[in-house]
Amino acid sequence: MTVTDGQRPGRRPGRRPGSADTRGEILAAARRTFAEKGFDKATVRGIARAAGVDPALVHHYFTSKEGVFVAAMELPIVPDEVIPQVLTGPREEMGERLVRFILTVTSDAEARQPLLALVRTAMTNEKAAGMIREFMTHALLLRVAEALDIPPIRMEAAFAQLFGVVLARYVLELEPLASAGVEELVALLAPAVQRYLDGSR
Amino acid sequence: MTVTDGQRPGRRPGRRPGSADTRGEILAAARRTFAEKGFDKATVRGIARAAGVDPALVHHYFTSKEGVFVAAMELPIVPDEVIPQVLTGPREEMGERLVRFILTVTSDAEARQPLLALVRTAMTNEKAAGMIREFMTHALLLRVAEALDIPPIRMEAAFAQLFGVVLARYVLELEPLASAGVEELVALLAPAVQRYLDGSR
Repeated sequence: MTVTDGQRPGRRPGRRPGSADTRGEILAAARRTFAEKGFDKATVRGIARAAGVDPALVHHYFTSKEGVFVAAMELPIVPDEVIPQVLTGPREEMGERLVRFILTVTSDAEARQPLLALVRTAMTNEKAAGMIREFMTHALLLRVAEALDIPPIRMEAAFAQLFGVVLARYVLELEPLASAGVEELVALLAPAVQRYLDGSR
Repeated sequence: MTVTDGQRPGRRPGRRPGSADTRGEILAAARRTFAEKGFDKATVRGIARAAGVDPALVHHYFTSKEGVFVAAMELPIVPDEVIPQVLTGPREEMGERLVRFILTVTSDAEARQPLLALVRTAMTNEKAAGMIREFMTHALLLRVAEALDIPPIRMEAAFAQLFGVVLARYVLELEPLASAGVEELVALLAPAVQRYLDGSR
């Protein structure tokens, strides 16, 4: 409920449809909407309303609800930035770096929202689960497994540990896990993750 | 679509409302319904319809949708049976027993359904997340942590590992994790879980 509410309803007259700002506002609105409603209940119309633009503009930029979803979801974890960040440094500290990275990113409520929306969606929508699976597998897990020369299943085990912790922390809100600090959890979890990354089997 | 469909719609005339069989059929119908729809979209009316009984009978047995849910969810993992099964035997093999137990239970699609319904529900419904959190914490995690004399957060880390694996396997269907055999995964995951159960700090 800010000053801009006065410009509603519908589109904001003073802005050109093609501006980068409009695209960014649609993506921000989409993240909020998917995080709140999950994929199935969210609509292009609802996202457009939240962004203060015409639904046709959302279709113009992203073709479909799926298109908005993928674009919105790509923002918090950009593989080309994350992977080098985790791989750079001593290999025996990689588990620690990975755990710290995931816990730090997810500590930020705004960064966490789209990730939880993603999981929420995957739980009830097979198409979305497929999108996430393909993204996870090809953009992240296989690339890291290849860089480390370990079997992909070991990356998946490490992912599962961190995935489970994030859900236990922010969805189930199990205590004391939910209130524990990042460094306490790094000390607890990094040895398990490191073991998966060490390879062999 | 069996012969009993001929007895519909509404209640089945030949059965007494108080029979154990009716209660069991309502619970079975509730598990199917929650697994399909999650908690929010499932209705007492829908569960009653799936069981072929009057909605009033569902209310009579379980008071509310929440009541049906808790009763239906308690069935696959009964703490009083599971905990001794995991605790009995050499402590250094406890991680292995726990991993094998969880992977074996979840290998069965019928046992898995209610667990996934539970998670699906928790993702979108705070009340359900609260129910699960309380059930998990008081009926399972704290009891095992106390029996093993380890900090509860270590049980939560072990739980998170297995929770993440089950979701990666059956919701995201990440490969090769989804197709891996139980014993292959026991070998991969048990050392991490055992480390959590070994305690200290």
